[in-house]
Order: sequence, then structure tokens, then C-alpha cells
Amino acid sequence: MRLVTFRRNGRTGFGRLTGDGDAVIDCVPLLNPELGSVRAVLAAGALEQVREASEGRTGDVKLADVELLPPVPDPAKILCAGVNYRTHREETSRPESAYPTVFPRYADSQVGHDQPLVRPAETETFDYEGELAVVIGTGGRRILAEDAFAHIAGYACYQDGSVRDWQRHSGQWVPGKTFPATGGFGPALVTADEVADVAALDLVTRVNGEVRQSASVGDLIFSIPELIAYISTFTPLAPGDVIVTGTPGGVGLFHEPPVFLQPGDVVEVEISGIGTLRNPIAAEA
Amino acid sequence: MRLVTFRRNGRTGFGRLTGDGDAVIDCVPLLNPELGSVRAVLAAGALEQVREASEGRTGDVKLADVELLPPVPDPAKILCAGVNYRTHREETSRPESAYPTVFPRYADSQVGHDQPLVRPAETETFDYEGELAVVIGTGGRRILAEDAFAHIAGYACYQDGSVRDWQRHSGQWVPGKTFPATGGFGPALVTADEVADVAALDLVTRVNGEVRQSASVGDLIFSIPELIAYISTFTPLAPGDVIVTGTPGGVGLFHEPPVFLQPGDVVEVEISGIGTLRNPIAAEA
Repeated sequence: MRLVTFRRNGRTGFGRLTGDGDAVIDCVPLLNPELGSVRAVLAAGALEQVREASEGRTGDVKLADVELLPPVPDPAKILCAGVNYRTHREETSRPESAYPTVFPRYADSQVGHDQPLVRPAETETFDYEGELAVVIGTGGRRILAEDAFAHIAGYACYQDGSVRDWQRHSGQWVPGKTFPATGGFGPALVTADEVADVAALDLVTRVNGEVRQSASVGDLIFSIPELIAYISTFTPLAPGDVIVTGTPGGVGLFHEPPVFLQPGDVVEVEISGIGTLRNPIAAEA
Repeated sequence: MRLVTFRRNGRTGFGRLTGDGDAVIDCVPLLNPELGSVRAVLAAGALEQVREASEGRTGDVKLADVELLPPVPDPAKILCAGVNYRTHREETSRPESAYPTVFPRYADSQVGHDQPLVRPAETETFDYEGELAVVIGTGGRRILAEDAFAHIAGYACYQDGSVRDWQRHSGQWVPGKTFPATGGFGPALVTADEVADVAALDLVTRVNGEVRQSASVGDLIFSIPELIAYISTFTPLAPGDVIVTGTPGGVGLFHEPPVFLQPGDVVEVEISGIGTLRNPIAAEA
């Protein structure tokens, strides 16, 4: 299943994409009222209920006629891995590390597919980071790496838009990683049953159609199970939480000279089997 | 007013301490049902309603007969300032910085007054950091420093318990700063009207009665208005959000040799006019 969260006529709901991906089956009217959001569905362990209720139905509305929001608009925790591809570690000149590098961003920093990423008024150094996002289905603490895949609801593309000067104000990156409307997430949550081997997925980031990052998810330094095991040791994970797994080499900061995102640019993160997340860059109003 | 959040007979509520501080006026039955928590009161801008409803009443229950929780148990954001006292910056050997160092912790890492702080099973290097916490009353984005005090609901003591080895696994500190039950917060939220000059407050941290940290809040490198202005630039602040302002010199890590918290120890953070937050240290069960 590909689940989207959308806004239409002032109402926020969620739905399942039809097989051709052109239309949305509005799931909210098909389910009990407490299952009104993707996070609520995950918390209730009700993905199969969504599948059964929506199976074989035709779309209620064209995808083009809804505004997509992040597939999980309200995760309690979003934990991002830093320097987690060798190519990116090398361009940052950071040493190897025995442990993952993990920092959070807040849910109110996210936008959905086709929504503009906003370059904050405070910066000229807004940069892209194409990544694979993992959405937790079953929560837990101290999840073992060998059990980790059973805790995953699905995957999506993520644009971990980074305000480089604010990221480097101190040693702690959060100020550059959670400005409003700097994180792209979508277009859909692709449930884990559709992904035979996540390590075999290919990730490409494009700016105005030009490839800037290209990697295999198998190149991750710390694998998805290792990230889930590590993170869930220091903080409990809950349904709907998001782990953003890291970006490969090729970010704008380490081009010579650096190239940063400008209003009017269009960034895309395409992951094979997962979809393409596209966001225009807007100047702050 | 001194507002506490408490659990009693399986119910969580909030109340106002009586003048002598020995008893709690249970506020929930005195207010409309939507004002059922301190965060809800702050979000509704209803502190004065709480004051009027509770004014002159006698306590409903002795303070000793309730279990205190963090005064705001459910802040959406807890943002902590690092290396924000000169004495601590010097012991860490970090250079001066033009910007605050800011990292988050999650609400599920908090405990209240007298609740045990739990040394995680993964560490031998659990450390104290006594701090002043600021609770946001009126939210905002890009709050100007000169307007910042108008956004503050009040103050409390904070124990930013730190798992030093996990804090140093990478350059990002969050893994060492948000283990469950490592952040002490309380005992009460002291509303801002009771604090004539926050910079004049004195902060002392004791371990088993021995003074380990002692400073004036006026020694902060980045003042409370500067922190609010900086943080609210990169992320919106909402009622109930908490800013933890930093710890002075004297943490266990930089003793020679280092001294870490052991199960059975008792840590206290006392701030003049705000109260004393006391927590025993427990081994993880």
C-alpha cells in the first residue's frame, strides 16, 4: 500500500493510492472514527484493516486534486542519522565513528510532496540532503537489530533540508535542521511488504533535473536495523516515529565552490520502488 | 503561584501550592474541563483564571501525600542550552561562541521532584547538571529579546541528567541527553510574577548534601531573552515549551578524577525563590 495524507476542501484525511497512483481512495470514511490519521492507524496496529477496507476500490479523488501533506504529519519523534554514507563522510572530512550520529528535527519543520521548502530569511546557505525515511509501526525500547524490520511500517523519501550556517553555529546541528518548512517528506508511505530488500534501493537527488546525489541504500554505514537498535536504546520509539537514515555524498555545501538552493529551484529525491518527492524552493514571504 | 502536576489515587491533576507550601489546592475541579493540565492552562492563557479560582482556598491534600510529576509533563519541545556558563565552558575547554549551543531532549525523559532519576543499564557515567528551566506561556516565532519576558509563564529547577559516554558517541549530544527518567523537573512551576529579577537568582547543585555547582543566573553567557530570541528564530515556541538554560561549572565529568552518580545518591538543585528539586539516583531495574 501507498498511504498519503492530504488536505482537500479544508479537511485533512488520509488515503491509499490506487494501483496506477493517479487517484486517492479516501480511507477515513471507510474506518472507525478513531482511525482518522496514519499515526492513529499505526498506533492501533490497523494497517491490515486499512488494506481490507480499501482493497479493490476505485479512487475517490484524483491525486492532482489534493494537497499532499507529509505521510505522517505528526510524528512524536523524528530522528535523523548524520554522516551515514561513506561518500558523505569523506566529503565532510569526518573520521569514522563506532556509533551513529543522531540528531532530531521537529514535526512542524515538515512539508509534503509538491509543497514549497522555504529558505529562511536568515540564510543564504540552504542545502539539500536526499534521504530514505523509515516509519515505525510497532514501538519499542531496546529493539534488537535482528527484530528491527518487524517494527517498520514502511518507507518514504525525505529531504532533510539544512540551513548550513545555523547548523554550524555551534557543535550541535539542531538549529540548522528544524526551521519550519525545511523538511520534505513523501509523497507516500510505502508499506514494508512492498519492499523486498531495502538495501537494494537506489536513491537519487536532483536539483532542477541535474543529478547531485546517487547511492544505494546498501551503502549506509549504519544499517536500518542498527539505527533502530541504537536509537531505541536511548529513547523509546512509538508508532509513527520517523528515522531519517542519512544522506550520500554530493550535498551543495561541499561543491567547490559551494552551491546552495535558490528560490525557484526544484529538488527531487527519487528512491526506486518508493517514489519521487519533489519540492520547489521558495523565498520566505 | 506555584503550580504542581501530581498523581494521586491513579489520577493525574494539577494544583496550586498553599502559601506555606505544605499542601496542594486541587485546581482541576475548580476549572472548566478543558483546563485539565498546566499545558492546557498555558495554551488557553488562563493562568489568571487559575489564580482567581484557587485564591484563598485551603489545601485539599498534603503535598507529602501526592506523587509529583514534572510541572509540565508534556511539553512539545524541551530545548537545552549547552556550555552557557563561563565556569562550565572553561572546564570543557570549549572556545567562546558567538551563538548559543542548543540541543533538545524529549518529554518522556523527564521525572518530577522526589521521583528517581534512573541510571541507564548501558552506562557507568551518569552525571548531574543543575539548571534553571524557563516555561513558555505565550508562544511565538522570532520573539525579540526585548519582548521575551512577556512570553515566559514561569520558572522551575531542572536536572539535565547526562549519560556522558553516549553524549560523546558522536559530535551530537542527544543520545546522552534523553534516556528515559534522566531529566528532573520541578518541584513546581513558579509563575513569573513571583520573580522580580531572574538574573539575581542563585543556583546550587548538591550531591548527597555536598555542594558541587554554585552560580548566579546572572552569570549565563546567553541571557534568557537571548536564548528565547535565538531558539524562536529556528523553531516556533508554544505554551508549555521548556527552555533549560545551561549548567555552571562543577559537573562530575570534569572532576579529577571524574565522579559519576551512583545508585543511592541524592541530587538536589536549589534555586533561590524557585525551590529545591531533589531526586534519588536509582539503578535500572
